[in-house]
Amino acid sequence: MGKKLLLDYGSGGLASHRLVAEVFFKHLKNPILARMDDAAVLKLSGPVAVSTDSFTVDPLFFPGGDIGSLAVHGTVNDVAMMGARPLYLTCGFILEEGFDLDDLERIVASMAAAAKKAKVKVVAGDTKVVPRGAVDKIFINTTGIGEVIASPAPSGHSARAGDVVIISGNLGDHGLTVLSCRQGLSFEAPVKSDCASLNHLVEKLVTGVDTVHVLRDPTRGGLATTLNEIAQQSNVGIVLEEDTIPVDPVVASGCEILGLDPLYLANEGKLICIVPAKQMHKALEIMKRDPLGRKARVIGSVTSDHAGKVVMRTGLGGHRMLGMLEGEQLPRIC
Amino acid sequence: MGKKLLLDYGSGGLASHRLVAEVFFKHLKNPILARMDDAAVLKLSGPVAVSTDSFTVDPLFFPGGDIGSLAVHGTVNDVAMMGARPLYLTCGFILEEGFDLDDLERIVASMAAAAKKAKVKVVAGDTKVVPRGAVDKIFINTTGIGEVIASPAPSGHSARAGDVVIISGNLGDHGLTVLSCRQGLSFEAPVKSDCASLNHLVEKLVTGVDTVHVLRDPTRGGLATTLNEIAQQSNVGIVLEEDTIPVDPVVASGCEILGLDPLYLANEGKLICIVPAKQMHKALEIMKRDPLGRKARVIGSVTSDHAGKVVMRTGLGGHRMLGMLEGEQLPRIC
Repeated sequence: MGKKLLLDYGSGGLASHRLVAEVFFKHLKNPILARMDDAAVLKLSGPVAVSTDSFTVDPLFFPGGDIGSLAVHGTVNDVAMMGARPLYLTCGFILEEGFDLDDLERIVASMAAAAKKAKVKVVAGDTKVVPRGAVDKIFINTTGIGEVIASPAPSGHSARAGDVVIISGNLGDHGLTVLSCRQGLSFEAPVKSDCASLNHLVEKLVTGVDTVHVLRDPTRGGLATTLNEIAQQSNVGIVLEEDTIPVDPVVASGCEILGLDPLYLANEGKLICIVPAKQMHKALEIMKRDPLGRKARVIGSVTSDHAGKVVMRTGLGGHRMLGMLEGEQLPRIC
Repeated sequence: MGKKLLLDYGSGGLASHRLVAEVFFKHLKNPILARMDDAAVLKLSGPVAVSTDSFTVDPLFFPGGDIGSLAVHGTVNDVAMMGARPLYLTCGFILEEGFDLDDLERIVASMAAAAKKAKVKVVAGDTKVVPRGAVDKIFINTTGIGEVIASPAPSGHSARAGDVVIISGNLGDHGLTVLSCRQGLSFEAPVKSDCASLNHLVEKLVTGVDTVHVLRDPTRGGLATTLNEIAQQSNVGIVLEEDTIPVDPVVASGCEILGLDPLYLANEGKLICIVPAKQMHKALEIMKRDPLGRKARVIGSVTSDHAGKVVMRTGLGGHRMLGMLEGEQLPRIC
């Protein structure tokens, strides 16, 4: 049996220093983090984008990722969606007494690998250890900081009638994977979380396309909820074409079995890009050249009709309103 | 009985939006937060100081503060200790299904009051609701961002032989208060947490004193642990004079009863200031004029002897080594 986390690893004293040295520094160390002052001092220029997210996913490890890689990708993506280059992350760990130290190290190593790939540095951290039962194993908060490189920065408030809505790939992979993993379900073929950092793709988009109105990643609440937020923030209508919405066939049939709608499932490696129609080809071309945007396609358009609402044109020519997610079928999905 | 938090308040969907509007925005709203994009866009100039901290204190409410005010003060202080002016906070809430909504609002209102007093804005947030039993009521992560105004920035690495060590006031109030509150103990007189934001005091110090080598707030692990960190980082020795260390008599006798050492108890509104001897009078004068530094005093000095170690000269003329905190008597103190 592996070594377990003791309460005094979170005391701020000797044992905390050992944990920091033996697990966190081993994987995440860089000159800024190594200063170990009360705060990190960073060089930044221009407008700064900041986002924070707590990760409570259950199970901790799932096909395609784990709570560590997810905590990096999720926050890197939120920062990137402002047309920004994410540079720095802070990490807050809340750990349960008795948590397996090998699992902790596996999670930290996975964060380090994800951060390296996204080219972000972990510059500040905090570790709390709470008594058994006060938290379920491990929760991680990350805050991301980056430099805005798009001018103006894309925003949920900037969709305009005449724009087109592009999605970077298949929907629902993360949500279905975590749920099926949690419940021990398997489908005709394996499913895998899409969790990935989209910042390099975003950088190509905002430097290569003249005008990007909106970038958003459809995480909790899925595509439908995120588009509703954009429709409300921009006071526009959004029309989706059902036949164009990309869902992997295995995910689609898994959702059918479980009574889930992939439009409301969380994604962790997809982005919605809304651009003026005349920028559509350029945006699609850039996205399709990137491994994370290979399956990009136009799924709808922005209209001045039915402001604040999202409508889906079905394959049979009907229309159906897509509201925000109501209720919660999938707690702890991210 | 008050309204309770439901799981779908953390779904990212409709109920989440209601919670944000009715509790978080009600108290914390400002133009940046109100944008509700994936990240906040901030104006910052010069070197930027960043710090993150998770708060898991038990009980949630205690004399002198609560988890909300503590989550603001703790992070504001960490940023300030770099000689920085804290400007922005992010907040991540992890909430337990069934948590009392009135308590949540009380905590958020307390954060708002603390943030207003410290003149920092909450610019980004995240809320997760996890099923009953997955977290004990509420944990809060805050990340603070500020502009470094001291040049060079104070650092734990910058103590030099010949410097004096000043503490801004009495030690151990926070630790003893939380512990006694948790265990239902009372002493001959009421004790109260010292939790407070020290950034305004820090700003006066770094603009009024020519050279400030080190600023640190002795939180988890207390004065003794923090001074050990500084001694190691700066590769110097630190000598404390026991008779000069300020401890409130009620706290001192409470500690004696409970077998606790106030030198190892957490403080949440105190700072250690290390300056060259010739700056001592100016630093003391500035501190004593501020309500949070009224009881400031010199408690020791920095020496080139016994590098990396902290030694206390006792009232009887003896010497005793003060190590870092070992073990953990007080989990969930902050």
